Amino acid sequence: MTATAFRSEHDLLGSLPVPKDAYYGIQTLRAMHNFNLSGVPLSHYPNFVSALAMVKQAAADANHQLGYLSDNKHAAISSACTQLIEGKHHDQFIVDMIQGGAGTSTNMNANEVIANLALETMGKEKGEYSFLHPNNDVNMAQSTNDAYPTAIRVGLLLGHNDLLLSLERLIDAFSAKGDEFSHVLKMGRTQLQDAVPMTLGQEFKAFAVNLAQDLTRLKSLANDLFASVNLGGTAIGTGINADPRYQGIAVERLAAICGYPIQAAPNLIEATSDMGSFVLFSGMLKRTAVKLSKICNDLRLLSSGPRTGINEINLPARQPGSSIMPGKVNPVIPEAVSQVAYEVIGNDLSLTLAAEAGQLQLNVMEPLIAWKMFDSIRLLRRAMDMLREHCVVDISANEERCRSLMENSIGLITALNPYIGYDNATRIAKLALESGRGVLELVREEQLLDDDLLADILRPEHMIAPRLVPLKE
Amino acid sequence: MTATAFRSEHDLLGSLPVPKDAYYGIQTLRAMHNFNLSGVPLSHYPNFVSALAMVKQAAADANHQLGYLSDNKHAAISSACTQLIEGKHHDQFIVDMIQGGAGTSTNMNANEVIANLALETMGKEKGEYSFLHPNNDVNMAQSTNDAYPTAIRVGLLLGHNDLLLSLERLIDAFSAKGDEFSHVLKMGRTQLQDAVPMTLGQEFKAFAVNLAQDLTRLKSLANDLFASVNLGGTAIGTGINADPRYQGIAVERLAAICGYPIQAAPNLIEATSDMGSFVLFSGMLKRTAVKLSKICNDLRLLSSGPRTGINEINLPARQPGSSIMPGKVNPVIPEAVSQVAYEVIGNDLSLTLAAEAGQLQLNVMEPLIAWKMFDSIRLLRRAMDMLREHCVVDISANEERCRSLMENSIGLITALNPYIGYDNATRIAKLALESGRGVLELVREEQLLDDDLLADILRPEHMIAPRLVPLKE
Amino acid sequence: MTATAFRSEHDLLGSLPVPKDAYYGIQTLRAMHNFNLSGVPLSHYPNFVSALAMVKQAAADANHQLGYLSDNKHAAISSACTQLIEGKHHDQFIVDMIQGGAGTSTNMNANEVIANLALETMGKEKGEYSFLHPNNDVNMAQSTNDAYPTAIRVGLLLGHNDLLLSLERLIDAFSAKGDEFSHVLKMGRTQLQDAVPMTLGQEFKAFAVNLAQDLTRLKSLANDLFASVNLGGTAIGTGINADPRYQGIAVERLAAICGYPIQAAPNLIEATSDMGSFVLFSGMLKRTAVKLSKICNDLRLLSSGPRTGINEINLPARQPGSSIMPGKVNPVIPEAVSQVAYEVIGNDLSLTLAAEAGQLQLNVMEPLIAWKMFDSIRLLRRAMDMLREHCVVDISANEERCRSLMENSIGLITALNPYIGYDNATRIAKLALESGRGVLELVREEQLLDDDLLADILRPEHMIAPRLVPLKE
Amino acid sequence: MTATAFRSEHDLLGSLPVPKDAYYGIQTLRAMHNFNLSGVPLSHYPNFVSALAMVKQAAADANHQLGYLSDNKHAAISSACTQLIEGKHHDQFIVDMIQGGAGTSTNMNANEVIANLALETMGKEKGEYSFLHPNNDVNMAQSTNDAYPTAIRVGLLLGHNDLLLSLERLIDAFSAKGDEFSHVLKMGRTQLQDAVPMTLGQEFKAFAVNLAQDLTRLKSLANDLFASVNLGGTAIGTGINADPRYQGIAVERLAAICGYPIQAAPNLIEATSDMGSFVLFSGMLKRTAVKLSKICNDLRLLSSGPRTGINEINLPARQPGSSIMPGKVNPVIPEAVSQVAYEVIGNDLSLTLAAEAGQLQLNVMEPLIAWKMFDSIRLLRRAMDMLREHCVVDISANEERCRSLMENSIGLITALNPYIGYDNATRIAKLALESGRGVLELVREEQLLDDDLLADILRPEHMIAPRLVPLKE
Repeated sequence: MTATAFRSEHDLLGSLPVPKDAYYGIQTLRAMHNFNLSGVPLSHYPNFVSALAMVKQAAADANHQLGYLSDNKHAAISSACTQLIEGKHHDQFIVDMIQGGAGTSTNMNANEVIANLALETMGKEKGEYSFLHPNNDVNMAQSTNDAYPTAIRVGLLLGHNDLLLSLERLIDAFSAKGDEFSHVLKMGRTQLQDAVPMTLGQEFKAFAVNLAQDLTRLKSLANDLFASVNLGGTAIGTGINADPRYQGIAVERLAAICGYPIQAAPNLIEATSDMGSFVLFSGMLKRTAVKLSKICNDLRLLSSGPRTGINEINLPARQPGSSIMPGKVNPVIPEAVSQVAYEVIGNDLSLTLAAEAGQLQLNVMEPLIAWKMFDSIRLLRRAMDMLREHCVVDISANEERCRSLMENSIGLITALNPYIGYDNATRIAKLALESGRGVLELVREEQLLDDDLLADILRPEHMIAPRLVPLKE
Repeated sequence: MTATAFRSEHDLLGSLPVPKDAYYGIQTLRAMHNFNLSGVPLSHYPNFVSALAMVKQAAADANHQLGYLSDNKHAAISSACTQLIEGKHHDQFIVDMIQGGAGTSTNMNANEVIANLALETMGKEKGEYSFLHPNNDVNMAQSTNDAYPTAIRVGLLLGHNDLLLSLERLIDAFSAKGDEFSHVLKMGRTQLQDAVPMTLGQEFKAFAVNLAQDLTRLKSLANDLFASVNLGGTAIGTGINADPRYQGIAVERLAAICGYPIQAAPNLIEATSDMGSFVLFSGMLKRTAVKLSKICNDLRLLSSGPRTGINEINLPARQPGSSIMPGKVNPVIPEAVSQVAYEVIGNDLSLTLAAEAGQLQLNVMEPLIAWKMFDSIRLLRRAMDMLREHCVVDISANEERCRSLMENSIGLITALNPYIGYDNATRIAKLALESGRGVLELVREEQLLDDDLLADILRPEHMIAPRLVPLKE
Repeated sequence: MTATAFRSEHDLLGSLPVPKDAYYGIQTLRAMHNFNLSGVPLSHYPNFVSALAMVKQAAADANHQLGYLSDNKHAAISSACTQLIEGKHHDQFIVDMIQGGAGTSTNMNANEVIANLALETMGKEKGEYSFLHPNNDVNMAQSTNDAYPTAIRVGLLLGHNDLLLSLERLIDAFSAKGDEFSHVLKMGRTQLQDAVPMTLGQEFKAFAVNLAQDLTRLKSLANDLFASVNLGGTAIGTGINADPRYQGIAVERLAAICGYPIQAAPNLIEATSDMGSFVLFSGMLKRTAVKLSKICNDLRLLSSGPRTGINEINLPARQPGSSIMPGKVNPVIPEAVSQVAYEVIGNDLSLTLAAEAGQLQLNVMEPLIAWKMFDSIRLLRRAMDMLREHCVVDISANEERCRSLMENSIGLITALNPYIGYDNATRIAKLALESGRGVLELVREEQLLDDDLLADILRPEHMIAPRLVPLKE
Repeated sequence: MTATAFRSEHDLLGSLPVPKDAYYGIQTLRAMHNFNLSGVPLSHYPNFVSALAMVKQAAADANHQLGYLSDNKHAAISSACTQLIEGKHHDQFIVDMIQGGAGTSTNMNANEVIANLALETMGKEKGEYSFLHPNNDVNMAQSTNDAYPTAIRVGLLLGHNDLLLSLERLIDAFSAKGDEFSHVLKMGRTQLQDAVPMTLGQEFKAFAVNLAQDLTRLKSLANDLFASVNLGGTAIGTGINADPRYQGIAVERLAAICGYPIQAAPNLIEATSDMGSFVLFSGMLKRTAVKLSKICNDLRLLSSGPRTGINEINLPARQPGSSIMPGKVNPVIPEAVSQVAYEVIGNDLSLTLAAEAGQLQLNVMEPLIAWKMFDSIRLLRRAMDMLREHCVVDISANEERCRSLMENSIGLITALNPYIGYDNATRIAKLALESGRGVLELVREEQLLDDDLLADILRPEHMIAPRLVPLKE
């Protein structure tokens, strides 16, 4: 490494050598030194980086339109922001997701990278901030306290469609299995005890319906919660030192740039410190996680065995199960989904703690909140894709097993109740339990019902829905 | 106690002596013996008991209309349900809120109390179930698995207006203080460090706005989440053994009885085991709890002192503070609110764990979910009433203190920035910090601004909102 | 109610009418008015009330010995404390467990009840505090900040043996079942898939061993964490205004009174605000809760069925299972235990939040911490008693079912591996899976092993432990 | 990339091309395809990778000693393990920390990397498993179910000293500040209200003592909880198919290799599925996190201001605070520590959920547990280093501010109480509060105490500890 591999930058606290090739600058470097914590840099979440650039672009547009930023500088900043929005140079966003300063380091990482990219566009060297300054120009009319929360919100909106798409595809996969298994009659179970008949198709359709409710809700929640931003509030929401026209223009530009119906929060002081949107959205993600885990637990129960469990369905084999136990195939995909769900629930707690720790005009724990939001969404998206691709689409039914368990079940007597009477039903149930025999067998033996009627009662369409039966007199 | 103080009842497991005066019966008694856990009986939540009676009434109406329940029995059951809905005999609901059996004990507690009340109406003795039976008549066409979750939902709707009312009043109290303090200029703080000026009124208005967002959201959420019920699904949602016309009538009757727009869930199998509504609503309550705790932490910070803290506001004294430290008055009300918030957050976790533990066609942990829902709502309601009555309405401002802290603050220089220039501002700030003197004093001394302009800049309306300043050239 | 039914008391904030019969006084009454939150009064936790009396007794002894408290007053206070320790008058402890003021209301509830009981002993009327004063005499040399945390710790020690006893009995019950089932051969399961053989006895012994580790740890932890108290530290641990000899005597007396090896914390300033003991002990209780829930989930899995589940064991019927499904018996006791576990985990979170919220020289959230500690312990104790009495002791094994599942299992091939070779084993496993036949049947058919050797291999003692096999060459 | 850049490997599920240079093999590759979740690979935790190698080495030693593994193979495996223990080739551990299969993928990643490293040593090509096989040789006599949990435990032990060292250094830093500030008299605060005097040294010493208790406990806990392993239990703890001598030798070898007093768990069936050690240790880490967050909140409170807060101490500036507010310096380091604490608390919850989800003979959620353990430890270690290096060591006291706040405080009257009497004290306190004047000023004005006595009372050594005062008569 030669002497020219560094450039010197300075700020209020002094000077530091910055790698010459780096687009980031001294304040990013300080943050790197200060915060070596999670090991997860900003660049892990491309939507967040893009959103930062969109906010900077919107601010620059407003400042330019109001005459505070020259044509020349505006063009250079715009070029820089465009590159970032296109996904370039994200590796320059090196600050740890956990950081003090309420996001100042993230904001400065963006300001510095944009400034240096812009300087190159202007034919200047990186670090020649006299021509275009990270604070004075890129951060003009902004405070971390408005630019940073705005960028988090925009970043979440940018990633929202992908989340919905993964969920939608998973719903479709469950629904298709519901169709495929619509003729497979089986016993339903409550409290892990034999209950009454249903179809395997109903079971899988219920998974689809269960998740479809989350799709509906997630769709409406994101715009509802995140489209309202505090950009223009500057330090604490009073908009001190900002041009009164600035906020309106900046917000309008941001909406145009990101394509979401961004609007100004009605009370910027409130909006500056409020984390309520994140708490509720994380609570909603937790709900989806809980549902996914419950469904995956069901898949594991239904595929348990093959000989000593329920074994009504087969999950596709994704990896050899055991070196010591030949032929064992394990439900590794649902297991991984539940772990993701636990992680999302843990994330929700960390985020909640951070939200509760806000004080007065700011919540300084917002970097943790941002991290947990982006992380939970990514984890859920990946887990849903994995569950669909590597598991659900290849699930098959053990139709014979389903039917034989049902026919052998004592719970089947419930369906015969209206036809043979409660007394007979109870007697047959007891006899079956003691003798180990099947209730159908006993009913036939006692000729309580003729074969045609019995067959009729046991037809799937009659077992799995309300049916008009004669009044018991 | 004489030998006649008990009546004997029996069920599948045998006989037990039931206190003769008790309206509950043997299955309630078994639950009492089995579940001595939380010490919190069903009767703690009157809305829940009323809701159980409403569900039973609706089912009886449907069964009567369809011809399964005689006029005589229907009249007796109706009379019994009416009494419970009017708040009578709630002391007969003695089962612990924590119980196994997915709510069977709660359902049977209701069935038995209603049966015995009805029997009295019919001129029969308690326990003469041959005339009217808890299971066959009161529970007719129902399963715990549909009646119980439906009652929880209705119970939550019944209590919802009270929650909203408490929240609304608290918002109004904060808003009124916001008006009262609208002229009190003070320093805003970010990261607990002096930031820029605002008014105390803005600070209190932000509390009101912050909570008002929850009011809006809570208003829409409850109907959205709880009005959809699985009544008529019987054991697992297939509606087995139910008359196909039953569900429609029962649900319609329930809506009429409770006064909420109750409707049948679109997929009853899904609805039987799904706890998603509770998870999301609890997440929303958690959000309100987090906000309340944050606001109460702010109240404690702002009233800290009186001499060694911030001391910008005074909270009303609610109890002598200390025997050892004369004259000490502590912020006991906000402290209690934060503890309630922590309890609500803990409740949300317990509920989440219970929701995740659902298996196949049922969630057997629903009793815990019900308890945590009713408990969090009651706690929040009481905490908000307490906060308003015993604290917010009597908060007063230390106006002089607010102004003097602000005038002495170095952060004030931010407001002068556009007028004296960044270089002067930085120099003055540094000088103030080193000398311990005030920035205004120094600015005056150096005659950087004349007194009229300074006074103009420092007028509240100019300090606390964006202001058009001349472009810096 | 006549006019004489009240006495008037006053404090720094003014006067209030106190019910004439009440032993509590005005400050307790204020707390009642202020804190109507959880609905759970102090009296719910008798050990806590007794511990408060013990602390007051110890302080009175020290003050008397040092000459600050007259013989007369000391005798009266001692008599009052004795009554409370004997369990009398606990109904006078009416303050809500959730309260602001860092326990001041609890401390004053104790001071007032003791003062009025003492006054009666002295032949005075309740409320005649000029003869003996709640603050000046009963609370002498104490602050809430040292008396209250000390009482919590002593209260936890008082209840500790009962917790251990319940745990020990549960362990014994599992261990006895382990012996009873030691000959019942069955398949072990990993990932809910058939694994390798074990005995049902081993499975139940493992439950016992699992819990026995918690017994050991809980035994040592309580003394370790709670015997160290900050009594004598007064307001913030500096012991201001206390006689230097006071602390030593008071702590020594407290140890003598409660019978635990109480000693002074090494640093009283640290001890005054530190909640670490509670956090760790609650974490330990959470661990026990997690274990209990896991074990109960296992019991539910093993008893699932009877026909469509695993059905290796039978849980005793504790209540009729279902009105709609005749003969259904549900695992209601394990279900309730898991709900208790979720509640304890939620309690741990609430407590953690409260612990984190400590500020400077005190943690004002300590009342919530106290509540959650006493509550979790009581819940666990009751749940363990319930689990043992109402479930474990009456569990029976379905021996034939266990053996038949095992013999039918493909996993059995693992045990034959060393004798027939891996290639044969894999081939047989595959054949069994495809044909639906049993591996033993196939091995016999192919005469891969003679009957004697096969019988020998399948003897329980050979299947369930390491066995010296010939080296594969 | 040429055609020779891949080698083909196959397993029970078929064949896949593996990058030719990769030491990992087909099963690792399957795991990569299956589990794209957290984005955090095994290699993030070097101690875990080293521990896996140590377990493999110990097993190989035992197998060699018992004659099951040839000299040649043993030497090759040993060479491979040594390289990994030395930190080489960790980049080959690419599997996601979240994975299904209860750690099978991690175990196979280790088996494959070791096998291929060993093959190179033997002069063979990677993938030539006929010469040395990942399963048959490297994994000999092991199951994932014993090797994986053992490796987690060893990995935690390996990192334990570093954790202790970071904690110890932080304690020393606080203690040194305690000495440095031992003469700085200030007001203590309870409930954020002025209480009684103490020294800033006492406050910092209390931080040190508070954390020192965790040092003691962490020291003893790790060996206690993690030194007991289930190696040799194979699939479910019965040790099926293992040589009876194997376990003893393997465990002894492991102890020798890792340098910790590893021993066999007393009941291997219990040990195979028990996650209790992790739950308790995580609970302990949570306690440390809670303490760190509380301390950091105190640091932020004490350094609040500079003009509108407490401002008793100065934290070192670590980054420029604000672009919009010149001269603002924020407490970024303590803010980051609290966020780490929230993350650790969230981790504890995720881990708890995973522990509760264990079923029958195994806990399949163990990969999440492993991740959360390693992650919390690393986060805490880094946060403690950051707090010490970048904050504590450079904290300075505002001595004059401390003294002036104290002298101006009304709480000071508590110290004068024994000398001027309670009535005078109360009167002076009230007068001070109303007039805004200081109590010392008023006491002097009224000549209640002469200057010498007052000076004596106010000497630090007299204010901050119990003092023998004349009895009040």
